[in-house]
Amino acid sequence: MNKFKWLACLLGFISSVGVYSQSDAQVLKKIYTTSLTNGKSYDWLNHLSNQIGGRLSGSLNAEKAVQYTKEELDKLGLDKVWLQPVMVPKWVRGFKEYAYIESGKGKTTTVNICALGGSVATPALGLKAPIVEVKNFEELEMLGKENIEGKIVFFNRPMQADLISTFEAYGGCVNQRYKGAVEATKYGAVGIIVRSMNLRLDDLPHTGSMTYEDLPVADRIPSAAISTNDAELLSTMLKLNKSIKFYFKQNCKQLKDVLSYNVIGQITGSEFPEEYMIVGGHLDSWDLGDGSHDDGAGVVQSMDVLRLLKESGIKPKRSIRVVLFMNEENGLRGGNKYAEEAKQKGENHVFALESDAGGFTPRGFSFDCNDASFNQVLSWQPLFKPYLIHFFEKGGSGADVGPLKTETNVLAGLRPDSQRYFDHHHASNDTFDAVNKRELELGAATMTALVYLFDKYGVNPIVNEKQIKQ
Amino acid sequence: MNKFKWLACLLGFISSVGVYSQSDAQVLKKIYTTSLTNGKSYDWLNHLSNQIGGRLSGSLNAEKAVQYTKEELDKLGLDKVWLQPVMVPKWVRGFKEYAYIESGKGKTTTVNICALGGSVATPALGLKAPIVEVKNFEELEMLGKENIEGKIVFFNRPMQADLISTFEAYGGCVNQRYKGAVEATKYGAVGIIVRSMNLRLDDLPHTGSMTYEDLPVADRIPSAAISTNDAELLSTMLKLNKSIKFYFKQNCKQLKDVLSYNVIGQITGSEFPEEYMIVGGHLDSWDLGDGSHDDGAGVVQSMDVLRLLKESGIKPKRSIRVVLFMNEENGLRGGNKYAEEAKQKGENHVFALESDAGGFTPRGFSFDCNDASFNQVLSWQPLFKPYLIHFFEKGGSGADVGPLKTETNVLAGLRPDSQRYFDHHHASNDTFDAVNKRELELGAATMTALVYLFDKYGVNPIVNEKQIKQ
Repeated sequence: MNKFKWLACLLGFISSVGVYSQSDAQVLKKIYTTSLTNGKSYDWLNHLSNQIGGRLSGSLNAEKAVQYTKEELDKLGLDKVWLQPVMVPKWVRGFKEYAYIESGKGKTTTVNICALGGSVATPALGLKAPIVEVKNFEELEMLGKENIEGKIVFFNRPMQADLISTFEAYGGCVNQRYKGAVEATKYGAVGIIVRSMNLRLDDLPHTGSMTYEDLPVADRIPSAAISTNDAELLSTMLKLNKSIKFYFKQNCKQLKDVLSYNVIGQITGSEFPEEYMIVGGHLDSWDLGDGSHDDGAGVVQSMDVLRLLKESGIKPKRSIRVVLFMNEENGLRGGNKYAEEAKQKGENHVFALESDAGGFTPRGFSFDCNDASFNQVLSWQPLFKPYLIHFFEKGGSGADVGPLKTETNVLAGLRPDSQRYFDHHHASNDTFDAVNKRELELGAATMTALVYLFDKYGVNPIVNEKQIKQ
Repeated sequence: MNKFKWLACLLGFISSVGVYSQSDAQVLKKIYTTSLTNGKSYDWLNHLSNQIGGRLSGSLNAEKAVQYTKEELDKLGLDKVWLQPVMVPKWVRGFKEYAYIESGKGKTTTVNICALGGSVATPALGLKAPIVEVKNFEELEMLGKENIEGKIVFFNRPMQADLISTFEAYGGCVNQRYKGAVEATKYGAVGIIVRSMNLRLDDLPHTGSMTYEDLPVADRIPSAAISTNDAELLSTMLKLNKSIKFYFKQNCKQLKDVLSYNVIGQITGSEFPEEYMIVGGHLDSWDLGDGSHDDGAGVVQSMDVLRLLKESGIKPKRSIRVVLFMNEENGLRGGNKYAEEAKQKGENHVFALESDAGGFTPRGFSFDCNDASFNQVLSWQPLFKPYLIHFFEKGGSGADVGPLKTETNVLAGLRPDSQRYFDHHHASNDTFDAVNKRELELGAATMTALVYLFDKYGVNPIVNEKQIKQ
């Protein structure tokens, strides 16, 4: 038995007896009760969504959100609140996009599209071309240049409905949106239309980021998403008539990078102030809705974690930061900047938790960490049972905290119920009314509970064995 | 160690190794995939909600729902489909209710109310009286006749926000609605206004059943629910001015009982046709919305259980029935009738599962059964893990299946996520758009999976030990 296995056994034993005390159950009760009866997350989200609105990187709204959240953090009596400058891309949508299917002379059917984030515009009068449907890049390759050149490529692989995790279904589709233009360009396509990443059939197009990689500007082709209903319609019409044409017009463009900020607040640790634990979400959003679920929810929940710690009378041993990241959606500049500066300063980030999967009923967390830390988490499961928090799995954490990964720290992502997330994701119905107050507050409490436990017992149980036994 | 304990230990051991086979995991996969990719529940609900609408007992819509669901069951190729006659109460709301707070001469503020189900009307010109607020029946008693006689009693105890189960919060409040009139009448009240059973603050009044017990008709006082926003307003105004009056007008009435039906469909068992397992929900609903969550969801999920069994190639050993109960909301006549007739015929109901907690993401089940059966369920937990079904607790089942209880059978209730349920319960926003297709379908699949397992392994593992070992 090697050293690791021995430790794993020991931890298995500790986990079976439960590394927590009765008082922890009382603290969790206090945290959940405070969030449900005296939470601030819903009020903050109301302001972010209804007074500010969509917060695309580089927009005036994004800057308003920076100012607003900083002011609100200032009111919480934290030890420190500051802005971390970061240059972000600025892409603007321009006028509302317009598109139709032309199935014969003068026979047109209007459809709902939106430009993908980062796309170039069509020519000023729009782009009309024959359209060819594919399900994936392999089909594209099989069709080859002779069937694609001069045409618009229609990527129409739906999200897989039988996957229980809708994020897994998203993962299986999103390459069409992100890399579709690059792939289609190889065969001479003049534009792409992508089926919206949405499990429902409805009329709303869903935007999202895309890349041109290193394509010269002149070779970049306009790219748009089409609603799922219209994707079905287009596909049916194409089956009946291969010669139909597609027209679309959009005048989005990429401007110069502009200055923006991550917003950061800190409670300084009483015993280990040099160990940093962070909670965060992203302040920017897409522009079609008001970004309530993506990621207004994560922003206000993260803010409330620090407030709930204070309200519950918890004085953390470690330094706890809330970090509201700028530009997750189309650049990840905020997440990268934060990690870069942390590295430069030699800050030891022992823990990072991200909420960026919507403000729905929390089910648990996904953990990117070593086995010892994961076993420690599993030992706390009984504490979460009264709150119906049951999902504790190893896996990814979140895009913004990802760059902080080390061999010993713990990265985690809140995992809310995912069934409705892609009904709203990046679409005009990602709005405040789609968020339930209690579900949002339960998420904030669940995050706070995990932060409390990791702060109390330490992030690495091998290193911190003494603390565990206290 | 007595016999029971020994059995419990044995079952504990069996449970730790898992009483199921690899093929069960494949069957569950098939069930969930079929429901999510080829379910019928959402289409059926669309019809029930949008083509028929609210289905109050005794109404034309309720009869339309009987006909529609029977026709749809007829199409499924079951072994038998029939209607079970049952007399039901018929209460009608009449015109839309109207109410205002009078805070001074000519100073009135309109508020949102609805008559409670079963309430009598106000006088034709309405009822105006001073109003007194209480939080519970103890306060009522303390105030006594001298402070209540001739007044309207305003019951304003909110649902407790810090309870994780909203049904528990409902249970802690609903006596105000159900028994408020009876209690207030003791002290000479002339009417009651009850805060809606709703955790949100909004403008929608929520109806629901009430009783006059054996009060003579002449002594029955009109009873209505007020929206939570208006309850807050009224309470605030009362704090400032004790002499304000409340006016309301409603012309609801109780008519004679009418003939209606439970709708029943059956797949006859291949090995134990005399053992009955039922799944059900209630066809009737309140009249303000279209009853999509309460309980259109349970109806269509129950129907789909039998269809999903067939689609998944499962030939049950026991007779499986879907029972769509009439009149759960204001009488429970359907549930009582079904149990009564089952008893008369000596039908052995070994299992009954009810879905009447909304069409939200399923989290698990509550079981009313003995320890042996419950341990059997716990042994199946790993099978449900891929579908994030984690809640397996002893507790209540459901109102309609409750009368079937015996010492040895298993009654169960589907337990969906409860956070949003009371946002819609008995209110005008209990509508089809509030139901998510995937959440509904996951519920149907989860119910089907449990029925499949109980049918395969038998309901009472002590009696059926041989089957378990097969």
